Amino acid sequence: MTDPVDPVDLTARLVRCPSVTPEDGGALDILRDLLEPAGFACTRVDRNGTPNLFARWGRAGANRTFGFNGHTDVVPVGDPADWSRDPFGGEIVDGILWGRGSVDMKSGVAAFAAAAVDFVRDTPPDGALVLAITGDEEGPGKDGTTALLDWMAEHGERMDHCLVGEPTCPDTFGEMMKIGRRGSLNAHVTVTGVQGHAAYPHLAKNPLPALARLCDRLCSAVLDEGTDHFDPSTLALVTMDVGNPATNVIPRQGRATVNIRYNDAHSGQSLSDWLRAQADEVAGDFGVEIAVRVSNSGESFVTPPGELSDLVAAAVRAETGLDPALSTTGGTSDARFVKDHCPVVEFGLVGRGMHAVDERVPVEDIRRLKAVYARILKDYFA
Amino acid sequence: MTDPVDPVDLTARLVRCPSVTPEDGGALDILRDLLEPAGFACTRVDRNGTPNLFARWGRAGANRTFGFNGHTDVVPVGDPADWSRDPFGGEIVDGILWGRGSVDMKSGVAAFAAAAVDFVRDTPPDGALVLAITGDEEGPGKDGTTALLDWMAEHGERMDHCLVGEPTCPDTFGEMMKIGRRGSLNAHVTVTGVQGHAAYPHLAKNPLPALARLCDRLCSAVLDEGTDHFDPSTLALVTMDVGNPATNVIPRQGRATVNIRYNDAHSGQSLSDWLRAQADEVAGDFGVEIAVRVSNSGESFVTPPGELSDLVAAAVRAETGLDPALSTTGGTSDARFVKDHCPVVEFGLVGRGMHAVDERVPVEDIRRLKAVYARILKDYFA
Repeated sequence: MTDPVDPVDLTARLVRCPSVTPEDGGALDILRDLLEPAGFACTRVDRNGTPNLFARWGRAGANRTFGFNGHTDVVPVGDPADWSRDPFGGEIVDGILWGRGSVDMKSGVAAFAAAAVDFVRDTPPDGALVLAITGDEEGPGKDGTTALLDWMAEHGERMDHCLVGEPTCPDTFGEMMKIGRRGSLNAHVTVTGVQGHAAYPHLAKNPLPALARLCDRLCSAVLDEGTDHFDPSTLALVTMDVGNPATNVIPRQGRATVNIRYNDAHSGQSLSDWLRAQADEVAGDFGVEIAVRVSNSGESFVTPPGELSDLVAAAVRAETGLDPALSTTGGTSDARFVKDHCPVVEFGLVGRGMHAVDERVPVEDIRRLKAVYARILKDYFA
Repeated sequence: MTDPVDPVDLTARLVRCPSVTPEDGGALDILRDLLEPAGFACTRVDRNGTPNLFARWGRAGANRTFGFNGHTDVVPVGDPADWSRDPFGGEIVDGILWGRGSVDMKSGVAAFAAAAVDFVRDTPPDGALVLAITGDEEGPGKDGTTALLDWMAEHGERMDHCLVGEPTCPDTFGEMMKIGRRGSLNAHVTVTGVQGHAAYPHLAKNPLPALARLCDRLCSAVLDEGTDHFDPSTLALVTMDVGNPATNVIPRQGRATVNIRYNDAHSGQSLSDWLRAQADEVAGDFGVEIAVRVSNSGESFVTPPGELSDLVAAAVRAETGLDPALSTTGGTSDARFVKDHCPVVEFGLVGRGMHAVDERVPVEDIRRLKAVYARILKDYFA
C-alpha cells in the first residue's frame, strides 16, 4: 500500500509558488503532477490568460459526482520586509507553516487533493470526483471558477454536490461552515451642482448638502430584520470625496460610495431600484443631479440545510467534536458561481490571518482538514 | 500750475511691477517717488518681510485726518500662456488697460494717490491726509494693514475716517459701496471611529454616518433672517473627504469643512459654540469622536450709514449719476482691520474679472474713480 499524501508537505510546496493573481507560479503543475498519476483526467481550462485546472476521477457525467472547488492564487504580500519569514518560503517552524496562501487557501486545496488521491486509490467509489481549481479567485474572477463551470457545461462534466474549501471558522477549527453567502454590491453616487464662490452661494448650486442628506438617509435605512438563514442586511458608507482645497469655493461635484451586504430579502436589482429612488427624491428636493452607478459583485444565495450540510456537519463533528454552525456571514467566495451549478457548501480552516502579514497555519489543522474532507468522501459514497 | 497726475499711467506703471504676494516688485517705490516730492512724509513700515508704505501730508495727529487704504500686491497669474496679453505688461489697447492687478487694486491705489497729490498741491487743506498702502492683502495679511495700523498707534498717527479703495461695484461703476462686511469663518470637522471590514460593520465604528448627519444638520440650519444692514448669514459645506479607495473597508476617519459668512447677529465665538454643540449632539448619538477646529478670518462689522457714507455716496452720485447701494455683501477686505481704528467704508471699481485670467479695466473708469476720490477730499475738507 502506498503512503498517504502528506497535505502539509503539499501545502508547503504550493506556498513556494509565487502565485499572486494572475500569476500561477507553477502551482497548478504541482497539482497536476499529483493527480494524473493517481488516475485523474486533468485539463488546463485557461481563459484569457487565467490559469485553471479541471481534474476528474471516474466517468464524465457519472450519476454520483462529488466536487471540490478552490483556488491557488493569493493576494499580494505587501512589503516583504514586514514579514517575519519569507512569504513564499513555505517554512515550517515549531509546527507552524508560514507564508502567503497558507490559510487562504493553498492548504484547503492541498487537503482536498490529498484526501481525493488517497480515497480513489484505497476505496475506488462508484461515481466520480471532480476537482475544479482556479488561479483567479482573489482577482477579478471573471475567468476563474466561472470559466471552469462554463467549460464543464460544454463538455458534459457535472457535479452533484460541491464543497468549497475556503476558510470558514472564525476562531476554532470546526466551529463553522457556510451554507450561503450574502450578496454584495457597491453603489457609487455622484452629485453634480454648479460651482461658485462661497461668499455668493445663491449664484452657485452646492451639491454637498444633497450628498450629505442622501448619505444620511441611506445610512439611517433599515434594510430588513434578517431572514431564516441570514443576518440583517447591512449598508456601509465607505467614502465621501470632494477634494476641494479652497474654503471660499463651492465645488461642482461630490462623490460617495456605499457597500451593501444583503440577504435573500433583496436582489442586486431591487437594491439598485431602491438606491435610485432615494437619489431621485433627494435630487428633486435639492435641484441637483445625482448619478448612481451600481456594481453588483454577487447575489445572495443559500443552500438550505439538508443532505449536503448534514454530510459535512457530521464529518466535522466526527473529526473535531464540534457541531459547526450553518452560517451565511462574511464576505463572498466562488460558491456564488457554483451555486448555479449544484448545491454547494463551504468548510475550511480558521480564517484569521488571511490576507495579513505573517499569514500562517498550524500544520495540525491542515491534517485535520484533510481528515474531514476524507470522511466526507467516505460517507458520500458509502 | 503743474499737470494733474495721470492715474492711468500710474496704474500701468504699477501693473508692470510683478508684485505677487509677498513680492513688492518695486511698486511701493513708484508711489514713494510720487508722494515724497508732493510733500508726503513717507515711511516704509515693513514687518516680517512684508512691504508696507505709510504716507502722510500735514501734521501727525491732526484733528481732521482723512485716510485711504489699499494694496499693491496681486494674486498669481496662473499659466501666463492662458492670458491674451502679458499679465505684467500694463498694455493699453483700445482704451483698455490689461494686467494682473489692473482691477484689484493697483488702479484704486493709483486713483487715490493721484487725487491726493493733486488735492494737497492745488488746495492745501486744514488737516491731514494719510495713505496706508500694504503689500500683503491677498496673502496671509498678518503683517500688512495690521502692521500699518500697529505702527500708526505707536507713532501717534491717526485717521478720523478711512476709505478702502477695493472694487465694490458688481456690474456698473458707481452702483455700490460697502459700509461693512460679513464675518467669515471656516470650521474643519473631523469624525473619528474605528476602522474595520465592510462585511462586519458591527466590529467597526463607521465615522461617516455621523459625518453625513452632522453635515446635513449644519446645511439645513437657518442661521438668521438677515439684520438691518446685512443679508442672512450663509453656511456652505465646501468639502467632505475620506480618501478610502477600498469598498470593503470601513474607514477610521472622515473630514468636512464648512465656510460661514455671517452678519452682526453672530460672532466667531457664538458660531463656534453653536458648531461645537451640534457636533457634540451628533457625536453622542453615534458614539464617535468629533473634533471641530474653527478658523475665524474676520468678524462682521458695519459702519452705520451717516457722515462718512453720505460723503462718499454724494461724491459718487455727483460723478456718476448713480446712487450707490450701501452694501455689506461679498468677501472680506482690510476694512476689517481698519474698522477697529476709525469709521471705514469702501468704494472702487467694477470687480468683475479680478483674480481671473485677462484681468483688465477701461481706462475711463480709472479716471472716473480718481474724480470720485478727488471730490470726496474736496467735500471732506470743505
